[in-house]
This record gives sequence, C-alpha cells and structure tokens, in this order.
Amino acid sequence: MSGRPSPLEEPVGELSLKGRHFYNLAHFSKREVESLLEAAFEFKRGGGGLPLAGKSVALLFFDPSLRTRASMEVAIHQLGGQAVVLQPGQGIWDLEFEEGAVMDGSRPEHVKDAAAVLSRYVSAVCVRAFPKLQNWEEDKRDKVLKGFLQHSRVPVINLESCWFHPCQALADLMTLREKVGSLEGKKVVLSWACHPKPLPMAVPNSFALMASQFGCQLTIARPPEYALDPDLVELVRRNMEQFGLKFRETTSMEEALEDAEAVYPKSWGSLAFYGRWEAEKAVRGRYRTWIVDQEQMNRARAACFMHCLPIRRNVEATDGVIDGPQSLILQQAENRLHTEKAVLSALL
Amino acid sequence: MSGRPSPLEEPVGELSLKGRHFYNLAHFSKREVESLLEAAFEFKRGGGGLPLAGKSVALLFFDPSLRTRASMEVAIHQLGGQAVVLQPGQGIWDLEFEEGAVMDGSRPEHVKDAAAVLSRYVSAVCVRAFPKLQNWEEDKRDKVLKGFLQHSRVPVINLESCWFHPCQALADLMTLREKVGSLEGKKVVLSWACHPKPLPMAVPNSFALMASQFGCQLTIARPPEYALDPDLVELVRRNMEQFGLKFRETTSMEEALEDAEAVYPKSWGSLAFYGRWEAEKAVRGRYRTWIVDQEQMNRARAACFMHCLPIRRNVEATDGVIDGPQSLILQQAENRLHTEKAVLSALL
Amino acid sequence: MSGRPSPLEEPVGELSLKGRHFYNLAHFSKREVESLLEAAFEFKRGGGGLPLAGKSVALLFFDPSLRTRASMEVAIHQLGGQAVVLQPGQGIWDLEFEEGAVMDGSRPEHVKDAAAVLSRYVSAVCVRAFPKLQNWEEDKRDKVLKGFLQHSRVPVINLESCWFHPCQALADLMTLREKVGSLEGKKVVLSWACHPKPLPMAVPNSFALMASQFGCQLTIARPPEYALDPDLVELVRRNMEQFGLKFRETTSMEEALEDAEAVYPKSWGSLAFYGRWEAEKAVRGRYRTWIVDQEQMNRARAACFMHCLPIRRNVEATDGVIDGPQSLILQQAENRLHTEKAVLSALL
Repeated sequence: MSGRPSPLEEPVGELSLKGRHFYNLAHFSKREVESLLEAAFEFKRGGGGLPLAGKSVALLFFDPSLRTRASMEVAIHQLGGQAVVLQPGQGIWDLEFEEGAVMDGSRPEHVKDAAAVLSRYVSAVCVRAFPKLQNWEEDKRDKVLKGFLQHSRVPVINLESCWFHPCQALADLMTLREKVGSLEGKKVVLSWACHPKPLPMAVPNSFALMASQFGCQLTIARPPEYALDPDLVELVRRNMEQFGLKFRETTSMEEALEDAEAVYPKSWGSLAFYGRWEAEKAVRGRYRTWIVDQEQMNRARAACFMHCLPIRRNVEATDGVIDGPQSLILQQAENRLHTEKAVLSALL
Repeated sequence: MSGRPSPLEEPVGELSLKGRHFYNLAHFSKREVESLLEAAFEFKRGGGGLPLAGKSVALLFFDPSLRTRASMEVAIHQLGGQAVVLQPGQGIWDLEFEEGAVMDGSRPEHVKDAAAVLSRYVSAVCVRAFPKLQNWEEDKRDKVLKGFLQHSRVPVINLESCWFHPCQALADLMTLREKVGSLEGKKVVLSWACHPKPLPMAVPNSFALMASQFGCQLTIARPPEYALDPDLVELVRRNMEQFGLKFRETTSMEEALEDAEAVYPKSWGSLAFYGRWEAEKAVRGRYRTWIVDQEQMNRARAACFMHCLPIRRNVEATDGVIDGPQSLILQQAENRLHTEKAVLSALL
Repeated sequence: MSGRPSPLEEPVGELSLKGRHFYNLAHFSKREVESLLEAAFEFKRGGGGLPLAGKSVALLFFDPSLRTRASMEVAIHQLGGQAVVLQPGQGIWDLEFEEGAVMDGSRPEHVKDAAAVLSRYVSAVCVRAFPKLQNWEEDKRDKVLKGFLQHSRVPVINLESCWFHPCQALADLMTLREKVGSLEGKKVVLSWACHPKPLPMAVPNSFALMASQFGCQLTIARPPEYALDPDLVELVRRNMEQFGLKFRETTSMEEALEDAEAVYPKSWGSLAFYGRWEAEKAVRGRYRTWIVDQEQMNRARAACFMHCLPIRRNVEATDGVIDGPQSLILQQAENRLHTEKAVLSALL
C-alpha cells in the first residue's frame, strides 16, 4: 500500500459542491452537508424543478442493489435526467484497475478508458463496488472507486464502496434529524448483529463517521473480534472530542442500549478473520444472541430502530421490532430518494 | 396450505379501479373489463395523454420476457412515466417470501421490505414470477405475487404468475372483440399442443376464465393427462352456465376444431406428472400429433389462429398456419401494448 | 451457403435514408454518408431538436458493450426518444434463427416472431451479435443480423455483427475528417496488433471499406496468417482503384507506418486458424512485437493514433501512445454519440 494516501486521509477538495465527487460524506464540511439536507427536505416537501434536464447519469453496478438502484433511477428521472444502468460482467466489459497493467489477461478494458469515455456521454458516474472480502489490505485500497475518481472527468458518486456508503449516511442523518432534531449529545448506538455471512463495513463506517461528525454520543457495541478498522475508529474518536464527547465501545449490547435514542444494528465481518470465513464461522456461533428483540428495545424505551436494509429478519432483529412503532426503516429508505436528489442537484 | 384462501377464491375488491391490484382479470366485473377495453381501443386509435407524467413504475422480472417487458416499457414511456426494470438474482437481491422466516439462509431480503420500500419510490409494482414446476401444491400458493399483493402499498400488476396472466387475457379479449365482435355464443377452442418442455398454465387458465366470463362456447381439447386444475375448470363451468352454455372437454383436437371461430393452441405440463418430467416425457411422446397444421385449420374454415407467443414453430403449429392469413398472433402482441396502457391509466 | 447472396454483395436499397436499414456503411453512397456526417457535426455543435419524441428504440445486445450501449442510450434520450435495452439469454428469451426449423430444442422463440413483434412496439431495432468464432463459413452468414433485417418491419441498426460495425466506421470517418480534412490520398495504416484472444473482424472490415470508399491511401500491415476475408479485400482494392490508388499489404508494421497520417492498430483472429485457437496461439506467440509504441509512432511523426476501444493497454499499444498527444481515442468515442444521433434521425 506503501505511501498511497488512504481513503480516510483524502484531502477535502476546495471546490464548491458543483463538479465535486461524492465519495465520503466526511469529505464535506458540516455546512456543506447542511446545505444538502436542506435541499433534501425541500424535495421531500415536493419542491424541485428539473435541474438534470437534458443530462444523463451512468449507474455502474459491480454488485447487487435494490434500494440504491431504484431510488437513483427514480431520483434522476424526477429531476428531468436519464439514468443509464450498466452492470460490468453482465452485459458490459469487465474492467482492469491496475495502473500500467500489461493487459494480456481476462479483463478487456481499463477503468482509465471506461471512465474517460463515459465522461464524454454522461454528466455523472455513480459506482457501486463491494469489497472482495479476501484481503483487507487489498480491499482498503478501494480500487474500483479510486479508479473512477481518478479517471472520470465528471463527478463520481459512491453508491457503496469497500470503505463508505455516503448516500446511506446522508439518508440516515436526515432520518435522525426528522426524529430527534439536532444530533448533538444524543446517545446513538451502532451495534454489531448476527448474520449468516461476513458483510462489508461501508455502512457502519459511514454511520459512525457521520454520527461523530454531527456530535452524537456514539457507542459501538460489538463482540471482541468485531472491531472496525482502527484508523477509522481513531477518526471517530477525534470527531467526538471536538464536541467534548468520549467515544465508547462495549462488548455488551444490553449495556449499550440503556437510554439510547437510536439503535442501529448492523452486521459486519471480522477484520481478525478477514478472508477466513470457516474460522470466523466457528467464533460467530457464539454470538447468535446478538439480535435486537423487544426486550433489548425496552432498555431504550424511546429509542428509534434504524437499519439500512436489506435486513435478515429474526437474525439481526425480530419481526416484532422491525415492524414495530419504533422502526424507522421505511423512512430511512424513502429518505434515500430525497437525499440522492439533493446530491445530484448539488454536484451536477 | 391449510385454510389459506386459494387465489381462485380471492374476494373481489370493492374499490374503484384506481389503486386496485391487477392480479386476476376475473376479479374485475364485466363492466370494469369493458371500461378497460374501451380505453385500450382509444389508445389504439392514437388517443392518450400523459396520465403517468412524473410517475415511475417498477417492473420486477423473476423470469424471462420479451413482449411483456418491451410492451410495458413502451407503454409506461408513452403514458409519460418511467419504467424501472429490476431482475431479482441478476443485479438485485434474491427475496425471501415466507412469513416469519428466520433468515439465516441464502436470501438476503424479505418481500415485506422490498415491496414496502419500492412503494416509497414508485406508483406501481409489476411482477412476473413463473411456477417452479416441482410441486403444484407449492406453486399454487403463488407466493411471489401474493407476497407483493400483501406488502405493496401501491397497485401490483401481475405480468404472469403461477396461476394467471391477466395482461395476456385482456389482449386476447381485445383481439377477439376486433375479430368476432361480441364473444357470446362464439365457439372458441383452447387446445393443448406439443412442446419439448412442461410449461406453466397461467395463459390457458386466464384464457379459459376470460372466454367463459364473456360467454364463449369454450371447448378444451387435450390428451387425458392434461386436465387443467379442477377448481379452475369448475369456475369455467359455472361461468358458462350463467350464459346457459355447457363447457366441453375432448381428447380429440379434430373434433374440437369443427366450426370453431377461434383456435388457441397452447402447451402446458401435466398436473398428474407435475415435477416428474422424465415420466411425463414418456407419455408425451405419444402426443406429437398435437400440432395445428393447415389440415386442422381447414376443419374450422373461418377460424382465427391465436397464440400468446413465444411459439415453437413446427411443434405447436406449422409455419404455414402461424404465418398464414388466419393468424392473429401479431395483432394479439400489439394489443398487449394498448391494453397495458389501459390498465396502467386506470389503476394509477 | 449455396447461392445465398453474401453480405458483401447486398444490393444497395433504392429508398431514401428514411426507413432504411443501417447494416453496412458501404451500402450508402458517398453523398448519403456525407449527409450523415453533416448532421453529426451539427449535433456536435449542440444542434438538434427532438426528432425521436414519442418514439421508442429497442437495443438488443447478444454480446457485451460499454460505448455502444451507453452512447446509444444517451443519443436516443437526447433526441427525445426511449431506449429499451434487451439482452437475449439474460432476461429475454433465446432466439432461433434457422428458417423452417422444427423448434423442439432449447430456443423458445424464432427471430421471425421476435422481430415482427418488436416492430409493433418500437421505431427501430438495434442489434449487436458477435461471431461465434468457430466456423467462418457459418459466421459469415451473419445470421442474427440477417434474421432481423429480414423480419423487422422497422429500420434495423447494426451495432456490430460478424461482418460489420458501421457505427464505428462512421465515427472513425468523422474523427479523420476533423483531423485531416478530406481523406483523399491520405496515407492511413490499419495494422494488426497483438492480443491474448482471437477477436472478430467487424471493425477492421468496416474501417478498410470506409477508408477505401473515401479515397484513403490505405495500407494493411499484418503477419502472413492474418489476411482479412479475400472478398472484402477485393472490394477494398476496387474501391481504391476508383481513386487511382493501389491497395498495399505488408508484413512489416515498421514499413507501413512510415509517413502515415493515421495509425489504427487492431487485433483480429486468423481465418487460417478459425475455430482452432490452440493452434493459432502457438503461431501468435511469434507476434508479440506487434505493439504500437512510441518508437513506431516516431516513424509516422504527424500521425494520429486511432482505436475503437476497448484496447489492451501495453499489448496492442503502450500506455504512452494511448495517452499521448497523438491519440484520438476519446474523440472517436465521443463521435460515436454524434454519429449515432445522425443515423437515428435520418432513418427514423
């Protein structure tokens, strides 16, 4: 990895929102994020116009999607634009990402050319590319998104990469704002949850960054093996210090939930066992009780229940909680649409 | 299955067409169907407007499609709306359909969430999901469509389920109306035809229901092993009794065709051998003569030839008949577009 | 093959551009091509209008695509129309192409029906279908495109077939015109290049035909085993004779490049080894030096570097050349958009 700047340390651009990339919500100042939120609320009230009239936007899905794809397609259309959906390996060419590669293998096109060509046709390139979950040192380079950020001449919007899911974080922020008003000092719990598979960390990463940037009293509950990336945790800690808050981690979901105002269960894979699922599976068997049920919710009586979806019902949380009155999951999903419109309008 | 209401017995909703689901054409009264037909004829004459302006419609294809997909995409666009095409398992998450499932298997998202989320983005959800053809007791629950009907908060349009293909039936009705005027008392033959594979029964089911609801003298010709579902046949029989007509089944295509005004060959699998294709194949070998050729058509001199397509040329019917002057197949296909516009405009 | 007219000898239609197929650029007179170019330049200057308003266009991709798909989708939208993307075998039915086939195999629908049905929904059918690369006698029938040309009742646009890639050739022509003005007498080199796979010949075929039709002093550089189809080469020769030019082939890239004004490296498979890649691979090992690097470019000091993309970087040409000041690859890619708009507007 050797000297490449990590995605976490990326310098914040000096540009206005127009023309900028949307890779990591934390690259935007609080004032900038507030302006996005303001626009999102205006869209939710039915405001709008057609700022994308005559413009096309490419949506590249290297990985599956329901909410992101449907909400982006609808957002682009409602703003007057055209969504062009492309699925590499399924109808479009597989891409090479290594700089200087001698391309005599199985990948026919370099991201350098794909990004530059798309920039001639469309006004923004939106990309989803999950980690391969074999090697964190490799995944943390986030090479698909990085390739497009480097070679696209139009704004790139991250639809979930190895590191970040900024569209989800912005929708989560909007939902919290609707529910609890200012986030400052509000106790919010991000809790690891059980799941039959090791999952990526983009959602918890982006949620933790967002919550800490906006002054939440964030607690992360997780089994010992499930720490998030230490550099990211350090950033979260520093963000919270600016509000005079102390970041807490605990291995007890029960303890964390007490008096929380929002509970966000989310599963992710263990960095300690990255790429070794058989070994992790043995450990994970001990954590089947990491499910949010009504008993847990009662510890946080007024708390709202959040999730980015898709959710494993009766594994991450029970049907009763997911469908109960504290659940904000559909509001979060709907806010994806409004916040994406805000991002598209601001950048394009 | 135990006490669940069967799709056949679904109560007819008391709502106006606006906001209703379009799952089974038989759930609509004759007066309601006539209003759809009237709108379809108006669209065919070039009338229209943009009743879907600003609206998006999701098209979920769990199974392949040419006509349905192309005609729906074009219909939605010509009405001013946006079609969002999603293919579960091919770019979008696989779905779980069992109520209360502990989701620790391979399906990451429940239809409950998918349907509720899509309802926040789009104005209608259109779904195609074929039977698995392993177990009729299982298939007849029609669980994919049922899942969306139950959990969607916007109208669901059935693009062919285990039981029904109401869009095809409406286009078939429009085509018959163009050709023979009132359907009452007109002799119409639905004939089983040969095919290299066991096929679903949605098209014959919906055609038989529609023909009987509109007073055709319907005859079904089929080999002994190829009865349609007995509950459905009973409904057809009762529909016809209301017109003072007697439903006929015969094992002789020749006999059935005599003096028919319309011939609709269609292949389907045997309920007696459901899920046991090897066994069925041995039986089916005896029915290679179930092909509509010119000799058969001559038995029904003035008859029109109908098929929903795709058709196995020179297996279900000969090239000569399919491409001959009696064939209505392209008219049927075109009427898909006009009737789908009528349905979309009425429901949304 | 027996008496079928070859795609090369297809008679030029007597129709105006309106309603014509766009299968092979060489089927259009120079005057007709000039009118397309003129429209393309007008689109590039920002002119336009919405000639496709209310119209839908089907895009059938039997094979992968990035530029073609994205540029066509954007072109159609910018002209006011709707693109309906269909991928046979991936969501739509597989097609049968043999006339009179007894369809008891694995292909459920005949092109005859698919083309006729689509003609009822859309205003043009655009088709991409690569050769199978097993048998040139079979591939040269170009049966997928031929099937649509025969059975569609609306214009068919070839998005790359076994024989031709007319959209690419038109964009290449536009790019050359921008760079060198009139093509007459300009020395242009089409050079075979190394590649890890045998590739189709549609791009070199269409480039050679176009260059010769417009009076270039065309030279083809290639190893001995890599002759293009002899009938095509004969046509190129005759085209050039009409300008008093002599067509040249050489087995030395170095020699060919001297004083060239444009260099178009492109890989293709050997007709001598068609369908026998293992055998061809052994031979090809000798031609690893067929790469365009800066040293080669220096032989053609003022030359522009062209490629249709995707390009195998550091195999067909070096990064330095591809990204250097002589490279026109992004201009070519952009001109796909403008020329496709010209074709769509002229034909529909």
